[in-house]
Parts: sequence; structure tokens; C-alpha cells
Amino acid sequence: MLKYPKPIEDLIEDFTRLPSVGKKTAERYALYIYTKMSQEHTTLFSNHLIDVKEKIQICKGCGNICSDEYCSICKDQTRNHKQVLVVETIKDLYTIENVNEYKGIYHVLNGAISISKGVGVSDLNIDSLLDLVKKENLEEIILATNATLEGEITARYIKELLQNYPVRITRIAHGLPVGGEMSYADEMTLLKAMEGRREY
Amino acid sequence: MLKYPKPIEDLIEDFTRLPSVGKKTAERYALYIYTKMSQEHTTLFSNHLIDVKEKIQICKGCGNICSDEYCSICKDQTRNHKQVLVVETIKDLYTIENVNEYKGIYHVLNGAISISKGVGVSDLNIDSLLDLVKKENLEEIILATNATLEGEITARYIKELLQNYPVRITRIAHGLPVGGEMSYADEMTLLKAMEGRREY
Repeated sequence: MLKYPKPIEDLIEDFTRLPSVGKKTAERYALYIYTKMSQEHTTLFSNHLIDVKEKIQICKGCGNICSDEYCSICKDQTRNHKQVLVVETIKDLYTIENVNEYKGIYHVLNGAISISKGVGVSDLNIDSLLDLVKKENLEEIILATNATLEGEITARYIKELLQNYPVRITRIAHGLPVGGEMSYADEMTLLKAMEGRREY
Repeated sequence: MLKYPKPIEDLIEDFTRLPSVGKKTAERYALYIYTKMSQEHTTLFSNHLIDVKEKIQICKGCGNICSDEYCSICKDQTRNHKQVLVVETIKDLYTIENVNEYKGIYHVLNGAISISKGVGVSDLNIDSLLDLVKKENLEEIILATNATLEGEITARYIKELLQNYPVRITRIAHGLPVGGEMSYADEMTLLKAMEGRREY
């Protein structure tokens, strides 16, 4: 087996740490950087990796990423601070926010309860959600964890944890995607779509 | 549109420079580095990007990448230095070498002639191939450029360039991939497979 020179092998290993990047893709990226990426862009890339670890803060309000103590959403007083949407990840927050419809605030759990991955309640931002419910007079908590086993378990856990507090707890709807054909839907989605049916 | 903090946006931009990495994938990589990659691995990643640009040399013989003046293949005197396999990229060299069958040496063109991408003869290592043919008493040049329009044009160009020199010029075979079903093959592959048919 002919091996690449060590600097390339090292970079291949770095790339394989990224999600869904296998050996072949990592090789492609590393060789691309060596052969095609300019010296300037490569240096910037190298610096940005360090910056991303050093210059980002976590919003003390919701767990979003920001450059300040509080993120722009938490600082926005025109938003409804009595309505909290609970998501698993920062990416989910951005996905919902960019639909440009929701006007409440968020709470990022930083994952979901997972037995297989060894993620327990104490690994997630659940305590801070409980604190928020105890301190603030919230109107609604919308559970927008994923429609996966882990997401469901997490939503259930939070629901039970908060059920004795005077706050409305809702779960986002699951069903057939808009524009999707029935025949392409999986069993679980169909089940959820049936369960969630409404008067028409 | 809610934007990520600048360090994340910068890193997303760096990742989109890689081949076949779109905005969504780049976002996923950048957020993964921020949320999941350890400080240690991120620092290594950052250093390796610099190393790859600084510590690699190009083999003076074939254009392969190496840590010395000449690569391990060119230095290997047990190999047939009269047989030269011409490839477009370093990756192609590794692909063929790792089949562990070929015992000649290589010549890396660093691309293929492409009008659409503005790659001309002078952008490729073609002159050095001509020099090699003039200087060395080569037996065979195997053209292993891709079976694409660019690869074919490049192979043709080299063939015409070298046709008056006493060296055998061959082209690797194109046809149905082994284990592949006829019905899945595209038209060009079938055409090549028919053209290249042999007595059975």
C-alpha cells in the first residue's frame, strides 16, 4: 500500500473526524487543499479553525452561539419572552429561525437523551430549562426535538419534568411533508400523520 | 436571515471551497468543529493545513508528492523505468499503485486539457514528458487519462506529440466495469466496450 506523505495522511485523518466523511472523501479534500487551494485561503482556513474555538460564546439565555453574552434573539425585546421553543441543536434553532415565522425565544438542549450514545439528562441543558420555568412566568414551551426515538424520549422526559408547573407544553406536529406523496412516506410518518389528524 | 457568528461564517466559507461541498454540508462541518471536535484535534487540524502546504515536495522524476527530492517509486530500481504510465492526478497514481500490479514508473500531468476550464497544454506537465521521451530510451507509454472528453483530448494530444519517437504508446482499456450489469451502463461506456471487444 503506497502511503501519502505524512502531512497529507495527517490532514486526511483530520477530515475523517468530520461527520459522514469517509477515507475517500477525506483524501479528496486533503489533496485538493494541497494541489488547488491557494496559500492565502489555506492560511485563512487554518486560522479560522482556531478562531471558531476561541471567539465564540454561548448565549447565557438560550444556549445559542453568539459573539456577546446574550444572542440577538434573547436581546430582542420585541419578541415574546414567554414562549420558549426547545430544540436539540443550534442548527435546529437556525433552521426554524430562518423560516421567519416564530417570534418567541429558544432553548437549546445540546443533544437528546440517548442510551446507545450514552447521553443522559445531566449531559443536556435541561436543568436550566427547569430553572427558567421556575423563575419566569412562561406561557408556552414548544418541544421541537426530532421525531426520532431519542427526540421523543427527550420530549417525554421534559413534559413529565414540567407537568406540575403552570405552563402550556406543546409538541410540534409530525406528519406527511408538504408536497410529499403518501406512497413515499415511511410507516412511522404515516402513523404520526394519522394520529395527528384534524377536522377538515 | 439569522446569520451565524463571524468565526462560524468564515469557517463555512472555507469549507465551501472544497470540492462538492455546498453551503449545508459546510455548515454541518463548521458546527461540528465548534460543538464536538476537541480543542486538541482542532489545533492539530489547523497546524496540518499549514504543514501540507509547507512540508511536501514534488518528485523531480514523475510529479508525485513526496518528502524527498524523488518519490519512493522513482527511487525504486527494481521497477521498470522504461515503462511510463501517464495519469492526470496524483490521486490516480495512488489508485493504480494500490492495485499492486503495475511495476513501471509514472508521470503525473496535473490535470487534463480543458477548454471550458481554460486549461491548456502549457498548464500541464507535458513538456517534461516529451523531454523524458527524448532523453530516455523508453519502451512504452501507457496513457491512463480519464475516459472523459478532457481525458481523451489530452491522450490524443500526447499521442500526436510523441508519434515520431520510437516508443510504443498504449491507452488503458475502457468498457463495462467488472461485476457491472449491462443495463446500468451508460451509452458511452457501451460504445467503448463494443469498440474494445476482443476474440473470446
